[in-house]
Amino acid sequence: VNKTALLIILNICIFLSLNQSDASEKESCFSCHRQETPSIVSAWTSSAHAMAQVNCVECHGEEYNSDHSTQHERIVVEAHVCARCHDKAARGHFAGKHGISFRAGRACTRSQMKTEENAEGCKDCHEKGAIASRQEVECSRFLAQSPEMQRRGRLMCHMVENRCDACHSSHSTDLSIARNPDICGTCHMGPDHPQYEMWESSKHGILFKQKGLKYAPACTTCHMPEGTHNVSEGITMGLAGQAYPQDVREKERDKMLEVCSKCHSKTFAAQNLSDGDAIQQQSMALVKEADKIIRELDQEGLLLPSPSDRPAHPLSGHKLEIGPQMLYEDLSRVEALFFRMKKFFYVITYKGVFHQNPDYAHWYGNAPLKLALSEIRSEAALLKELKLLRDRINNLANMDLTGANDATGSETDLLTLDLRKLKEQFLKGELSKDEYESRREALFKKYGL
Amino acid sequence: VNKTALLIILNICIFLSLNQSDASEKESCFSCHRQETPSIVSAWTSSAHAMAQVNCVECHGEEYNSDHSTQHERIVVEAHVCARCHDKAARGHFAGKHGISFRAGRACTRSQMKTEENAEGCKDCHEKGAIASRQEVECSRFLAQSPEMQRRGRLMCHMVENRCDACHSSHSTDLSIARNPDICGTCHMGPDHPQYEMWESSKHGILFKQKGLKYAPACTTCHMPEGTHNVSEGITMGLAGQAYPQDVREKERDKMLEVCSKCHSKTFAAQNLSDGDAIQQQSMALVKEADKIIRELDQEGLLLPSPSDRPAHPLSGHKLEIGPQMLYEDLSRVEALFFRMKKFFYVITYKGVFHQNPDYAHWYGNAPLKLALSEIRSEAALLKELKLLRDRINNLANMDLTGANDATGSETDLLTLDLRKLKEQFLKGELSKDEYESRREALFKKYGL
Amino acid sequence: VNKTALLIILNICIFLSLNQSDASEKESCFSCHRQETPSIVSAWTSSAHAMAQVNCVECHGEEYNSDHSTQHERIVVEAHVCARCHDKAARGHFAGKHGISFRAGRACTRSQMKTEENAEGCKDCHEKGAIASRQEVECSRFLAQSPEMQRRGRLMCHMVENRCDACHSSHSTDLSIARNPDICGTCHMGPDHPQYEMWESSKHGILFKQKGLKYAPACTTCHMPEGTHNVSEGITMGLAGQAYPQDVREKERDKMLEVCSKCHSKTFAAQNLSDGDAIQQQSMALVKEADKIIRELDQEGLLLPSPSDRPAHPLSGHKLEIGPQMLYEDLSRVEALFFRMKKFFYVITYKGVFHQNPDYAHWYGNAPLKLALSEIRSEAALLKELKLLRDRINNLANMDLTGANDATGSETDLLTLDLRKLKEQFLKGELSKDEYESRREALFKKYGL
Repeated sequence: VNKTALLIILNICIFLSLNQSDASEKESCFSCHRQETPSIVSAWTSSAHAMAQVNCVECHGEEYNSDHSTQHERIVVEAHVCARCHDKAARGHFAGKHGISFRAGRACTRSQMKTEENAEGCKDCHEKGAIASRQEVECSRFLAQSPEMQRRGRLMCHMVENRCDACHSSHSTDLSIARNPDICGTCHMGPDHPQYEMWESSKHGILFKQKGLKYAPACTTCHMPEGTHNVSEGITMGLAGQAYPQDVREKERDKMLEVCSKCHSKTFAAQNLSDGDAIQQQSMALVKEADKIIRELDQEGLLLPSPSDRPAHPLSGHKLEIGPQMLYEDLSRVEALFFRMKKFFYVITYKGVFHQNPDYAHWYGNAPLKLALSEIRSEAALLKELKLLRDRINNLANMDLTGANDATGSETDLLTLDLRKLKEQFLKGELSKDEYESRREALFKKYGL
Repeated sequence: VNKTALLIILNICIFLSLNQSDASEKESCFSCHRQETPSIVSAWTSSAHAMAQVNCVECHGEEYNSDHSTQHERIVVEAHVCARCHDKAARGHFAGKHGISFRAGRACTRSQMKTEENAEGCKDCHEKGAIASRQEVECSRFLAQSPEMQRRGRLMCHMVENRCDACHSSHSTDLSIARNPDICGTCHMGPDHPQYEMWESSKHGILFKQKGLKYAPACTTCHMPEGTHNVSEGITMGLAGQAYPQDVREKERDKMLEVCSKCHSKTFAAQNLSDGDAIQQQSMALVKEADKIIRELDQEGLLLPSPSDRPAHPLSGHKLEIGPQMLYEDLSRVEALFFRMKKFFYVITYKGVFHQNPDYAHWYGNAPLKLALSEIRSEAALLKELKLLRDRINNLANMDLTGANDATGSETDLLTLDLRKLKEQFLKGELSKDEYESRREALFKKYGL
Repeated sequence: VNKTALLIILNICIFLSLNQSDASEKESCFSCHRQETPSIVSAWTSSAHAMAQVNCVECHGEEYNSDHSTQHERIVVEAHVCARCHDKAARGHFAGKHGISFRAGRACTRSQMKTEENAEGCKDCHEKGAIASRQEVECSRFLAQSPEMQRRGRLMCHMVENRCDACHSSHSTDLSIARNPDICGTCHMGPDHPQYEMWESSKHGILFKQKGLKYAPACTTCHMPEGTHNVSEGITMGLAGQAYPQDVREKERDKMLEVCSKCHSKTFAAQNLSDGDAIQQQSMALVKEADKIIRELDQEGLLLPSPSDRPAHPLSGHKLEIGPQMLYEDLSRVEALFFRMKKFFYVITYKGVFHQNPDYAHWYGNAPLKLALSEIRSEAALLKELKLLRDRINNLANMDLTGANDATGSETDLLTLDLRKLKEQFLKGELSKDEYESRREALFKKYGL
C-alpha cells in the first residue's frame, strides 16, 4: 500500500511539474462553466482532484483552453487517461471481465474507437483483414438494433469496458459512490442478471442495509477484495457458465473461500459454493435439452414460421440461430421460450444460489426455467401433431387420386392421368365443382366411355 | 412568490374571520377523536394547518360539529376544498394530466360526482344527452371489473384526479412526504408504467439515494420544476405516446431541456431526449405491426376462440376490440400477447430511455416487446396452417363425395344424390359403418343395380 | 409483561446455577474462534446473551468444550434450544403458521429430524406406520428436486419452522434486525408471495421508510401485534385462501380490525378487508374455471403431451396432477399457464388488496390472472380444433376404404378386406405407390377379376 501511495504522489508531482496548469488556466474554464455547468464545477472544487491540483486540462486536454470554438461536448472516454495516474487500478480493470467488457457488444464498442492505438481491439472480433465477425463474438444483438438503441446499450452499459466514470463519479471523485452497491446495480440488474436484486433481498443485503459494511458484505467485499479492480477474481467460470480448466477453477474458488471465511466456516462456505456449481450444471442440462428439441424441429422443417420465412439474421442469414449470436427478434415461439430460458432463467437460477438468495434461485430462476422447458416440449408435440395431420392429409389426397384409378380399373392410363390432373386442379381450387364435373363428363366422352 | 404568499395569508385571514372556529369547536371534535383516531389528532396538532388555525371544520364542514349522529366516515374528497386556500397549486393540478386524470377510469371517477358543479365532467365521456361512452375514453376496463376491484383502482390510483391526499398526507401537511419520490412511486410503478423503478435504479436515482436532491434529480425536479402542480409540463406527447402538434412538442421539449441543462450540456440532453423520441416511434411501429396481424386474423375468422364465441365486451360486444377499449380478459392468445406489448413493453421501452435507464429500455422493454411480436407472428403462422389443413380436408371430403360419383359413372343423378346424403350422414357419425353399408346395399337394389 | 420478565430472569438464574460455564470455559472456545470466526465472537461479546452470561455451551452444548476433535460445523438448529429460556415466544411461534411451517416442504424438513422427540412430526405427513405421504401435504416439489435445490429451499426458507435464526441474528441477539421488515422480506418476496414488495411500495411502506414505526405499520405491527410470535393471528384463511369456519374467521378478523383501528376508523378498515375477501373469492373462481378446463382436456385425451407421455410424477405417476401436489415441471402448456395462475397471480391479486397495494392487486395480480385464463381458453380451443381435424381425417380415411368397396360393389368380402389392408399399408407409408399398385393388380388376378 505504501508503494502505491508513493507512486500516486509521484505521478501527481510529475503532472504538476509537466503541466502549465495554474489558477489562470482553471479560471479560463471556470469563467464559462460556472454559468454553463455549475454542478460540474462545484463537484470538482471539493474533489480529491482539486486538492491534488489535477485541473481541467489534465483530463480534458489543452485544446479546450486555447480555443472556445472547439467541440466542448467531447467527454473523457478512454480509461487510459485515468490510467496515467491510476495505474494499478487500470491494470486490474483491464485484466478482468469489466476491462475486456462482455463479449456482447464488444464489437460495437470497439467500432467507435478510431484511434491508432485501439486498432488492436479489432482482432477480438475479426480475423486479420476480414470484416466478417467471428462466431464467438456476441455482437449480433447490437447489429440488429437501431442506432438509438445501440447508444443506450453501448454507451450506458458496456461503456464500463473503457470508461472509469461508469462507476466513478467523474468530477467529484467521491469514492463512497463507486463503492456503494447501488452503482453496481445500475448494470447488474434486471431480467438477464439481477445480481443487485438478489444480493439486496438476501440476508447479506438486508444486514448491509441496516448495519453497514462492518456487518455484511456488499458487492465489492466479495468481488473486489482489498480494492482489486479485477472483478473476475474468485469467479470459477466464464460468461454464462463457460467452463474454465480445473486448475483455474480451483485457484479462483480458493480466492473466494478466503473471502467467505472472514465470516463463515470454510466447510459451510465450500458447501454453499459447490451447491451453486451443481445447480449451474443441472440448469445447463435443461437448456441443452431445449436446444436439442429446437434443432430437431428445425431439421424436420417444423418451426412456424421456419427460418427461411423470416427476416434474415444479420450474421447467419436464413438459418436457425440459437447459439451465442441468437437474437431476441424474428423467432418462432419455441425459440422465444428458449431465449428466456437461456438468457434469463438459467442465469438467475445459479447466480441466485451464489448470491445466497433462495427465492431467486427457486422462483425467479428454477421454476420459470422448468415451466419454459415444459412449454417447449408441449409446443414441439403440437408441431409434430400438425406434421402428422399434414402427412395423413397428403396420403389421403394421393389415395384419392389412385382411388379414381380403382374405380375405373378398365380405363386407359391416359384417361387416368387426365382425371388426376382435373382432380388436382379442383383440389387446389382452380376449378369450381360445376366446372370440374362438366369437364369430367367431357373427358369420359372423349375416351368413348 | 411574494404575491402568492400574500394571497395565502389573505385567504387564511378571510377564513379566520368568516369561520366561527375557535378552541371550543376544536375541542368538541377532539373530545371524541383523541380516543377514536389519536394518530389523526396528533398529526394535525403539529401541522402547518394547526399553526395557521385551519381547524377541523374548515375542511370537514360545520355539520360534524353540531350533530354527532352525522356520517363520520365521510372524508374530504374534492380537491376544490383545498383549492379555497391553495389556489395556484389547484389550478396547476387541474391543467395537467393529474388533474384531468388519465382517460382510463375517468368515466367511473366522474360517475361518483353527483354535485351540480361537476356535471361539466360528463362531456368528457358522453356526447351531450347520450349515455353511451365515446370511443376514445378508456373506461371499459373499469366497466368489466367487480365493484371491489373498481374501488381498488378508482379510489386508490385514479383518485389523484380530484383528491390532494393522493400525494399529500391529509392531516400532517408534511411536505417532505409529498415531495419524496416514494409517494410518486405508489402509483407510477409496476408492469404498466414503472417510472419509479426506472428512476430508482438509474444513476439519477442512486445518486439521489446517496447524496440527496442537491446532487441528483427526483421526480419533482423534472416533472414539477419550481413547484408547478401541472405535471404535464415538459412532456411532449399525450397518453401512451399520442402525438402533439409540432409547435407544442417543441415548446414542451424546451421546458424539459431547461431542467436538464441545470446539470448537463444542452447538446447532451437534447441527444438523449431525441433518442427517446426515436425509440418511441420504433417501438410503436412494432405495436402497429402486431395490430395489423391480429386484425387480419380476425377478418379471416382465424382467432381461437373467435370474438363471437367469447363473452361480450362491455362496449364493443362480440367484435374484436384491441383499441383503446381493449380489456385484459376474454381474449385469444395473440390478443393476450398484444395486450402485454402495448400496455407494458412498448411503454417501458421508451419511458426507460427518457428516465435514463438502459436496462429497462432493453431488458424490461425492448426484448420482451420483440419476443412478443415474434410469438404473435408464430401464432399467426400456426392459425393459418390450421386453416390450410381445414381447407384441404374440406376439399378432400367434397372430392370423396364426387369420388362416389366417379365410381358409379353410369348411375342416375338421383342415386348419386342419395349416396351422397348417406355418406354425409356417415361422415357426421349419424350412421355406424354397418348401417351405412347395409343402407347402401338397399339403395343399389332400389335403383336396380 | 412483569410476569414474563420474572420468568426470563428465573430461567437465566437456573441456567447460571446449573451450568458450570465460567470465564475459563468461554476462553477455551474463544482461543480458537477469535482467529477462526472473529465476527461471531465480536457479535456475541456485545450481545444481550453476553450480558446475561449465556455463554457458548448454553446453546451449543458441552461437548464442544471438552474435545476439539468433535464436529465443529454443527449449528444450533432446534428452536427448542432457544425455548428453554424464551418459552412464551416459542409457544407462540409453534402455534402459528411459522411454527408448523408451510405444508410445502414440511415433509422434507421433518425428515432431517431423527431425534426421538420429533417423531411426533411424522404424523403430519404420514398415516401411522405408513411411508406414503398424505395427499394434502405439498411435498412433491421437494421430492422432485435435486439435493442441492432442496438444500436451498429447506434450509434457507422453510427452516423458519424450527430455527429462530431464520429471523433473529444468531450471535448478536440484535432485535432491531428481527423486527425490521427487511428480514421478513428475505422469504416473503418474489413471484409466489411478494408481501414485502407490496408493503414496501404501498403508502404504509413509504411512510414507514420516511417516518418510521411511529407513523406507519411494518410487518410486525399487523402480524405480530404486542410481540406475539403466532404470526397467524388476525389471518382469516388458511394456506392459499383455504376456508376457515365462520366463527374462526370472525374472531381473527376482529383481531386485525383492532390493529387497523389504531390509525383508521373501523368502518373504513372493515370495508378494505372485506374487499380483500371478495376479491380472493372472485380470483379463486377464475382459478377453478381453469382447473375445470384442464381436467376436461385431460379426460378427452387432448393434452399435448399427455400425462402418459411425460416423466412420472413422484406421487401421482402418469396421471394429471394439478392439485396441491402440482409440480412446475413436466407439464403441458395449459398446465404451465395454470401453475402461474394458481401459485403466482391468484395469490398476488388478493394479497395485494390486503396489503393496500392497488398496483399489485391490479397489474401484478388480476391482469396476468385474467390474461392467463384467456390463454388457457385459447389453447383449449386449439386442442379441440386439432381433435376435430384428427376425427375428420379418420372419417375420411375410413370413407376412403369403404369407397374402395363402392368401386367394386361386385367383389367378394375377402377381396374387399385384402384391398383394405393394402390401402392401410400404403397410407401408413409401408408401401410405395408402385408397390401398392402392383400388389393390387396381383390381388385382382388372384380373385379372377
